[in-house]
Amino acid sequence: MDGRLVAELTRIVGEEWIYTAEHQLRTYESDGLLQYHASPAAAVLPNSTEQVRAVVAACSAAGVPWVARGAGSGLSGGALPVEDGVLVVLSRMKRILEIDLDNGRVCVEPGVTNANVSAAVGPAFFYPPDPSSQIVCSIGGNVAENSGGAHCFKYGFTTNYVTGLEIVLGDGELITVGGYELDSPGYDLLGAFVGSEGTLGVATKIWLRVVPSPETVKTLVAFFDSTQAAGEAVSEIVQGGVVPGAIEMMDARAIEASEQMGHAGWSTRAAALLVELDGSQHECEARFDEVVAICERCGSDDVRIARDEPERQVFWKMRKAAFPAMGRISPNYFVQDGVIPRTKLPEVLERIETLAKEYDMIVANVFHAGDGNLHPLVCYDGRKPGDAEKAEELSGLIIDACLDAGGSITGEHGVGIDKKKHMPKMFAEEDLDAFQRLRCSFDPAGLANPGKLMPTPRLCGEVPGHYREHPLEAAGLAERF
Amino acid sequence: MDGRLVAELTRIVGEEWIYTAEHQLRTYESDGLLQYHASPAAAVLPNSTEQVRAVVAACSAAGVPWVARGAGSGLSGGALPVEDGVLVVLSRMKRILEIDLDNGRVCVEPGVTNANVSAAVGPAFFYPPDPSSQIVCSIGGNVAENSGGAHCFKYGFTTNYVTGLEIVLGDGELITVGGYELDSPGYDLLGAFVGSEGTLGVATKIWLRVVPSPETVKTLVAFFDSTQAAGEAVSEIVQGGVVPGAIEMMDARAIEASEQMGHAGWSTRAAALLVELDGSQHECEARFDEVVAICERCGSDDVRIARDEPERQVFWKMRKAAFPAMGRISPNYFVQDGVIPRTKLPEVLERIETLAKEYDMIVANVFHAGDGNLHPLVCYDGRKPGDAEKAEELSGLIIDACLDAGGSITGEHGVGIDKKKHMPKMFAEEDLDAFQRLRCSFDPAGLANPGKLMPTPRLCGEVPGHYREHPLEAAGLAERF
Repeated sequence: MDGRLVAELTRIVGEEWIYTAEHQLRTYESDGLLQYHASPAAAVLPNSTEQVRAVVAACSAAGVPWVARGAGSGLSGGALPVEDGVLVVLSRMKRILEIDLDNGRVCVEPGVTNANVSAAVGPAFFYPPDPSSQIVCSIGGNVAENSGGAHCFKYGFTTNYVTGLEIVLGDGELITVGGYELDSPGYDLLGAFVGSEGTLGVATKIWLRVVPSPETVKTLVAFFDSTQAAGEAVSEIVQGGVVPGAIEMMDARAIEASEQMGHAGWSTRAAALLVELDGSQHECEARFDEVVAICERCGSDDVRIARDEPERQVFWKMRKAAFPAMGRISPNYFVQDGVIPRTKLPEVLERIETLAKEYDMIVANVFHAGDGNLHPLVCYDGRKPGDAEKAEELSGLIIDACLDAGGSITGEHGVGIDKKKHMPKMFAEEDLDAFQRLRCSFDPAGLANPGKLMPTPRLCGEVPGHYREHPLEAAGLAERF
Repeated sequence: MDGRLVAELTRIVGEEWIYTAEHQLRTYESDGLLQYHASPAAAVLPNSTEQVRAVVAACSAAGVPWVARGAGSGLSGGALPVEDGVLVVLSRMKRILEIDLDNGRVCVEPGVTNANVSAAVGPAFFYPPDPSSQIVCSIGGNVAENSGGAHCFKYGFTTNYVTGLEIVLGDGELITVGGYELDSPGYDLLGAFVGSEGTLGVATKIWLRVVPSPETVKTLVAFFDSTQAAGEAVSEIVQGGVVPGAIEMMDARAIEASEQMGHAGWSTRAAALLVELDGSQHECEARFDEVVAICERCGSDDVRIARDEPERQVFWKMRKAAFPAMGRISPNYFVQDGVIPRTKLPEVLERIETLAKEYDMIVANVFHAGDGNLHPLVCYDGRKPGDAEKAEELSGLIIDACLDAGGSITGEHGVGIDKKKHMPKMFAEEDLDAFQRLRCSFDPAGLANPGKLMPTPRLCGEVPGHYREHPLEAAGLAERF
């Protein structure tokens, strides 16, 4: 990288907050998706909107690509650096700027962790979107990926809670979209920026809606002899008008793995359904009896109700342990994030089972059943030649099965680097062009997180909506992704 | 208008479905906001996506501006024609294309009325956003204006229910954004298109989320001796964690006017608070007692509970009659649509009262109290010279008061032609530029509903985000708006 840019970045953030040495940069080579690696030329840690703005403007002037990064816990490679580019690390910007519980609003910097938003407004209020990584993941990353979580079926995703953003655009311009109110006049750019994976700019200030904590929470786990039966219970619960706070399913493989870590005494049955109701005491109690009855009617002969908060925590630990616990039964795994219409659950689960048999590989299933958001974990052994490739192929076929069922390639992890190859399966060329039109209006030089989200790197041309080949691609660098 | 364009449009929609005679066009000169008038050169009534696409392409090729119109019941002049332009009337496209209650989805054409969506999925399901005009207003218009309604406090606005759109862009290109699922990969253009007031393109197919109908509905009206006391009751109800289906306030003027039409025997007290709870039987009953207790604690000595569905309908008739009933006590009125943080209700209402006294004019207040969405009705007599101007000035000051309180110029009616002059009060020049960047990417020629939404007509230039004066403006035509 040009020494002048390094000098300029050093001037902006101070010597202490720019890393250029290899050993310093190693931490930043991947995000939570460890398959992908890239070395930035420099990582800078700005501490204010003005510093972010100056850093982006310097990159823009030098024509150097840059990537914003929060905690780096994302699972789609969204925060993967661009080789020889600049990484803008936002972990120092973790101030809570305003708390207004009377109006249910909080304003934070992007580096605040998801859990700390709830902590700041609790116990009377809470911030609903709850990725499993909520203790470490940052709100800025949640905004970039439109993160979800177990409670999003009832409460909605990140995009349903962001009311305003202060953003440094790709060309260094500072804008504010939305604000304090739920809805603003003019175009709703908020929706477009939430989930744009850092390709339009970087949020430096985030206004969030928080909601009163529920009076009561009641949780159960019901065991079934088939995933079909559990799937029917999900349909009956939802169609009966009950809106559970969370409704999660784990299959036998996932139960088995989690049990090794969580020691909850769960039986390795075909499916475990975790159902949580929250709301008023009256509502919860009445509805809870209904849910128990539905589970039993659908064939569950083992329904366990969490007697107290510690037992409820054990239930959730089992669910949240599923990902890390897979490491105990398999050296490596790919996690998918497909979405299907809820009614297609049994059919798609069967298809996944058939595919796993054909490939002679283990696929464990853990998922947000209410949303139809599947997380199939395709297990493989990275040391075995060809195994990773086989697992990746199988992963792709699982995504195809979701698409065939009328679903989507990602529910909450984002497209990033990992799923962009699937984008043309889901979108017509004109629809991808529509994305590109937006991209070009806010990041005309294509320097903000290039190579992510869109299937092929593209550059904005003179006419909005029409573009030519991106120089990365022309230089053959696109291959790297 | 160029005879060739008329011939081309006639060829596309058929002779029967193009109006060019003055008497035919008179119906289309205004929308629900009767202060503004303009005569289009032609109104066309296409009957399919292909026809809409061909009409827009023909306008685009001829460089003629066009405006999409549904039922024309909007209150911001959003569907006001452009003088000598083309009006694309979507009332023939009113097919319900798909109903999938298992997954809570319905797909409709833009001309379907709001009420007919609920009718199509009822009684087990319903479509929550409910503008007062729901019997006539069309879903296409609801999407364009991101319409709200009395039940949006609990259920959210149109934008929270649109899961997919098929859109003909300003240049005639056909794209699909979003789809069947709640969330899609890539940029969320759905949010940007919902509420874009026809300035980016026109929706030809709309996928909506519908939800199970509540088990029970319970409604009360509580009377207070001051709007402050009623405002406090609103705050206490909401902060106590109750989320009413609707929470509406009317002041003495509004009660008085409605009583003349609704004959409900309501007393002309300082404020009436209409609270509706919906949900499960258990939940409603328990919470309802809480609401009654809060109203009494806040000073209401007259709480009336609707005993049955007919009485509930009377309560709602009183609320919905407020606008038309004002016609009985005043020859004309302006309706505003300001939003304020809920906690600022008492302060802003007092300011409105002071302003009304200063101007010696009557201002009635009807509003969605939960959202802080005010609808001050500024009464005037159009036959009295200068009265309309005085009322408009007062209206502007009321909007300023909302903005001073940290609020917004519109909650649910949209910006249209009527509120665009207030946009610079709310947005910095860079933020308006950000809107324009989006506009330019999807309607580069600026032919889709020009002169609406943005404070000054602008044209997209060569570089995204930078533009020069719009020819309408250069020709002095902008003054007309």
